[in-house]
Amino acid sequence: MKMKMKQMAAALLALLVSINLYGEGQKDTIGSADSSADTQAKYVFLFIGDGMSLTQINAAEAYLKAGKSGEIGVEKLAFTQFPAQGLTTTYDAGSFITDSASAGTAIASGNKTLSGVINMDVTKTQKFTTIAELAKDAGMKVGILSSVNLDHATPASFYAKEETRNNYYNIGVQMANSDFDYYAGGLIRTTKTPDGQTPVLDIMKNNGWSIATTRDELNSLKPSSNQVYAYYNTSLTTNSLDYALDMEADDITLAEYTKKGIELLDNENGFFMMVEGGKIDWACHANDAAASISNTIAFDKAIQEAMAFYNQHPEETLIIVTGDHETGGLSLGFAGTGYDSAFTEISKQKMSYEAFDKYVAGPFKSENPEGTLAQLMPAIEENFGLTDFSDYESGLLNKAFNAMMNGAGQDEESYILYGGYNPLSVTLTHILNNRAGLAWTSYSHTGVPVATFAMGVGSDMYNGYYDNTDIFKKTSALMAVAP
Amino acid sequence: MKMKMKQMAAALLALLVSINLYGEGQKDTIGSADSSADTQAKYVFLFIGDGMSLTQINAAEAYLKAGKSGEIGVEKLAFTQFPAQGLTTTYDAGSFITDSASAGTAIASGNKTLSGVINMDVTKTQKFTTIAELAKDAGMKVGILSSVNLDHATPASFYAKEETRNNYYNIGVQMANSDFDYYAGGLIRTTKTPDGQTPVLDIMKNNGWSIATTRDELNSLKPSSNQVYAYYNTSLTTNSLDYALDMEADDITLAEYTKKGIELLDNENGFFMMVEGGKIDWACHANDAAASISNTIAFDKAIQEAMAFYNQHPEETLIIVTGDHETGGLSLGFAGTGYDSAFTEISKQKMSYEAFDKYVAGPFKSENPEGTLAQLMPAIEENFGLTDFSDYESGLLNKAFNAMMNGAGQDEESYILYGGYNPLSVTLTHILNNRAGLAWTSYSHTGVPVATFAMGVGSDMYNGYYDNTDIFKKTSALMAVAP
Repeated sequence: MKMKMKQMAAALLALLVSINLYGEGQKDTIGSADSSADTQAKYVFLFIGDGMSLTQINAAEAYLKAGKSGEIGVEKLAFTQFPAQGLTTTYDAGSFITDSASAGTAIASGNKTLSGVINMDVTKTQKFTTIAELAKDAGMKVGILSSVNLDHATPASFYAKEETRNNYYNIGVQMANSDFDYYAGGLIRTTKTPDGQTPVLDIMKNNGWSIATTRDELNSLKPSSNQVYAYYNTSLTTNSLDYALDMEADDITLAEYTKKGIELLDNENGFFMMVEGGKIDWACHANDAAASISNTIAFDKAIQEAMAFYNQHPEETLIIVTGDHETGGLSLGFAGTGYDSAFTEISKQKMSYEAFDKYVAGPFKSENPEGTLAQLMPAIEENFGLTDFSDYESGLLNKAFNAMMNGAGQDEESYILYGGYNPLSVTLTHILNNRAGLAWTSYSHTGVPVATFAMGVGSDMYNGYYDNTDIFKKTSALMAVAP
Repeated sequence: MKMKMKQMAAALLALLVSINLYGEGQKDTIGSADSSADTQAKYVFLFIGDGMSLTQINAAEAYLKAGKSGEIGVEKLAFTQFPAQGLTTTYDAGSFITDSASAGTAIASGNKTLSGVINMDVTKTQKFTTIAELAKDAGMKVGILSSVNLDHATPASFYAKEETRNNYYNIGVQMANSDFDYYAGGLIRTTKTPDGQTPVLDIMKNNGWSIATTRDELNSLKPSSNQVYAYYNTSLTTNSLDYALDMEADDITLAEYTKKGIELLDNENGFFMMVEGGKIDWACHANDAAASISNTIAFDKAIQEAMAFYNQHPEETLIIVTGDHETGGLSLGFAGTGYDSAFTEISKQKMSYEAFDKYVAGPFKSENPEGTLAQLMPAIEENFGLTDFSDYESGLLNKAFNAMMNGAGQDEESYILYGGYNPLSVTLTHILNNRAGLAWTSYSHTGVPVATFAMGVGSDMYNGYYDNTDIFKKTSALMAVAP
């Protein structure tokens, strides 16, 4: 009953918002929105699950339900219980299947552009202003967080303008010269500094940024600190947080960075915080459902930090959760398993494809210089729970092992089978996922719309079926920073 | 601006509805709902796209946009422009992946049951009352329409109670003995009458039903007619309307049956009409995107007939559009085409897989008793637009042709390749769909949630993320017929 009353209150609030913002004389109303009005979102969280559409969410929910109770159904994530839910199209100006740069631009600035382009128009001459910049100009503090490198396309879309997302150095310089308050997550990929130029981290230091690379350094930061860039070196990877599946107990999580961000950004003028679950996308590119599911759950934990803040400021907080596109063409059904699902199979996978690749190339190869598939079988069973292969599965596995040892062909079939990934590990995740009743159609993004969820001030505006550019429009209107 | 005002009005109405129906003392309030209240849905349309989830919808919209303008994006169907949109889980009591019987039961009666069971509980002892029966009991007229046989699981879920959907004769008898007013679409599949029993169509005749098998007979029906069962014999199939792709100009469409149904059912006590787009599912089982897309568009045309009625009775009409589950694991992205899409390729397909199968088994075989793939190539090019096969595609095609001529194996790989369908035609649709950037993961249903859309009285209640059983709960509450 309490929830029903809350939903009613939210509906009433949304009604007031829509009357206020979308009545006659819409533009004037938005332009003159009183910053002290009840309907304005003062604390705004925008969570973007990279590559996260409905199927990534639903796979996590089905897995949680099966794992916890053995029952059939879904154990809802925190964010899918938000009162508002919409569907969002993601195509860009040049391709039905977007990339993360054009998708990030659409969400951050409300404009469609070409794949690969960050906050510039299709002619690559006009630059767009982002919602984070508008927030900053309005006196709010701004935080940009991601589980991947902070100069990656999605986070970059909130502070940079570049003809191509591959201009990492230029993007890094724009980050170092931005007036935002908090960046956290993966180390920038900007390792190659052009001749005669200053490394990006040096520019940051010269500009007085606090660089926090340990938990102690993170914990020592205070709201009065200078601009902050927080990252740490993980055990496995350089430019991103490890997959949740590979994290060790003392690793800093996206949730921890989010919690610290709230502490640092909280101020009387409000804040805008974008948090990207970036490795959901990377897991789905590699067709690794276990990594996608565990990172979706980790992403939900970061969202729960925002929900804890919402509970303290329910009248002034808005939380939006969306994806920038779907990745991998994930579905919850496979030809070989028909109407059956066995989601608990996924829990047998103990490490990501990435960690397994490193194990095979490292320790395994050292111990077995002439390594055979038979020698690798114990590790396959231990880390993927795979044994008792059918003839069909054995055929796939042998072919993949040979391709790993002797090189996969460059032909169409090899690409469809392995997508440029390590043939063995991608075949292992395919076999495991298929046994669970999950399957993939691509190693790229797809054009499937994403699901968007919202709670808080004006959240009902996020109901419906709309475009990713509308996320900018709705959110900037609710923040009263629309251009 | 007008639309915004309408949405506001709808939001206010939904608020009133939710206060009225979901306030304290929920059960009592629902039970005593005043039938003359503004918030009651007097004319209710429930459209169920069998096998239609977000990807089936989005594929149709992307195809329409690409075909009409060559532009990138979506041309929205009529029903996806409805003001309310939700996501709906579909799992049943025994399987994460539902079948149409348990899904139909959930939507029709609000109860989860096992796959294959129609309106009985998991012990197969308790029978459930359906929303159509509740509507009839409340004095409303009732119509049940489907593009497939009217004793198929989905339509049967609104009038029958059986341990298994395969009890076609029993289901047919329940249809013939029901007090509903209008059945239309596909001929019942009840061809085998048990010894000593009366054929279902004879029971109908004995009960005084009007059986309309031609357009003239359909047109001659009047609101004062007896109970009506309308179907016709199509050129290709016996127990369903032909695929939209195969229909001839004078075929009776689901939209025409819907329009006639509105005329026959319209009365001062209101009506409940369930209309199933049943062949979307059949097309997706066969992995035929062109057939799925064209039938989704045909389904939308039937919905537009309801919208025309809504425009005459906006204060008393409710239209809900949902799917019962996803079929085929359709995605809008394929490994082999990466980030590219070419939806106009789909328009090159001139007939369904079913019509092509019949052509190959019939006219082609007669003319080419020793038929070779080379002899079939002109027909393949003419009907699927396929030519210039890559080495990979040629390999698939030759293998499929051999499997068609010599029988596909019963092994795992053969099932994954062909799913029990004609190996050649399913390979042709796979190749064509993949070239367009569409791909499938299964020949069965999948567990992916479906999208639900609503317009009219209380439509905002269909926003959010809820279960298929909630569709019964919401709709019966809005109709004031909840048990």
